[in-house]
Amino acid sequence: MIGVIRVLTTEDTKVLEQHGKLLEETYGLPVVSKCIPDQPLGIYDGETEAIAVPKIVELGKRMESEGCTVLVISCAADPAIGPLRDSVSVPVIGAGSAAAYAALSMGRPVGVLGITEEAPAVIRDLLGDKLVRYTRPEGVTNTTDLMTPAGREKAVEAARSLLDAGTKVIVFACTGFSTIGLAAVLRSELHVPVVDAVEAEGLFASHYYKQLDDVREPN
Amino acid sequence: MIGVIRVLTTEDTKVLEQHGKLLEETYGLPVVSKCIPDQPLGIYDGETEAIAVPKIVELGKRMESEGCTVLVISCAADPAIGPLRDSVSVPVIGAGSAAAYAALSMGRPVGVLGITEEAPAVIRDLLGDKLVRYTRPEGVTNTTDLMTPAGREKAVEAARSLLDAGTKVIVFACTGFSTIGLAAVLRSELHVPVVDAVEAEGLFASHYYKQLDDVREPN
Repeated sequence: MIGVIRVLTTEDTKVLEQHGKLLEETYGLPVVSKCIPDQPLGIYDGETEAIAVPKIVELGKRMESEGCTVLVISCAADPAIGPLRDSVSVPVIGAGSAAAYAALSMGRPVGVLGITEEAPAVIRDLLGDKLVRYTRPEGVTNTTDLMTPAGREKAVEAARSLLDAGTKVIVFACTGFSTIGLAAVLRSELHVPVVDAVEAEGLFASHYYKQLDDVREPN
Repeated sequence: MIGVIRVLTTEDTKVLEQHGKLLEETYGLPVVSKCIPDQPLGIYDGETEAIAVPKIVELGKRMESEGCTVLVISCAADPAIGPLRDSVSVPVIGAGSAAAYAALSMGRPVGVLGITEEAPAVIRDLLGDKLVRYTRPEGVTNTTDLMTPAGREKAVEAARSLLDAGTKVIVFACTGFSTIGLAAVLRSELHVPVVDAVEAEGLFASHYYKQLDDVREPN
């Protein structure tokens, strides 16, 4: 089972399982999703990230003890990824680093689309000089703004501006874009390869998950 | 169609298609394999790599014109990857960089197994300080040596020495290990995650290939 850690608190099963469902549909693998406690607004600044770190570590340890053989921190900022890796023995994949590595594998100039003032540090650091431009949709400051037709149109406009800057692949630095299905829109309307952070975390998680059968069952 | 570029010359269809078959079996995607001319011994030093570069570029351009929508340079040294990327408009994935990125996504100390004196530069450079140790099987200097039971046993021994050095994931820096099926052996005998360079090139190639349907067929 792949364990998906959501870094916000929700009692709405549909919201909780949004990323996990996408992983199941894309890769056909068994997924369980769980969320951290007492953060209904998730992580949106340094303080809320710091508060979340021990919760993510505890949740990850619990999911490992419950049988998850690969863990995914399903947030483009990779919160708590170092401490969690130090605390469990299973592979831990972060959405942000996964998206960056998937983009780097193509070797093309990268445009990054997010909703924060700048790209998450992990994505900036890994992309280095391959990161040509970062932008965010006008007027969008949280994932709820993305859910409206206007928010979606602004996201397409922002992506178009990344292509105008000479980028050849677009990386999503927010998992909210996955929830609104923006990747399919950009691929069909702008004809550009897109690295969706949730798809990317699933790409690596599935790579390690699939070989665990071999690892655990010698033949 | 994913185009697999073999950087050695062979008229033996089975040899030619070894990597492509592995990709088809692992990812269920259509693959065509072609090889460069006049290098039956492949690339084994700086001079033979330099001679191969324009051949790889020409072959890649031809495969793009014949309809390949993703190209793979199926060699852990990523020969000609920059010039080929400059010459085609489709994504170009290299086995070496793909393997390095797949390993990095896990964030664990990496051991690299190859058959040359040191790891290919692309793998060394990308892994950076995550690369804890490189080694090669004793007495193995070419892929033919790997085909014997003794060669295979030496490869397992070499992998074990990487784990003894504290590495937590093993990267193959030679596609010959894919041909002998070493990944399954190490996963079952040593219980360690393995990044097989051919599997890794397919991981990224499939990621970009699958989205091309969206890119080309707006719905």
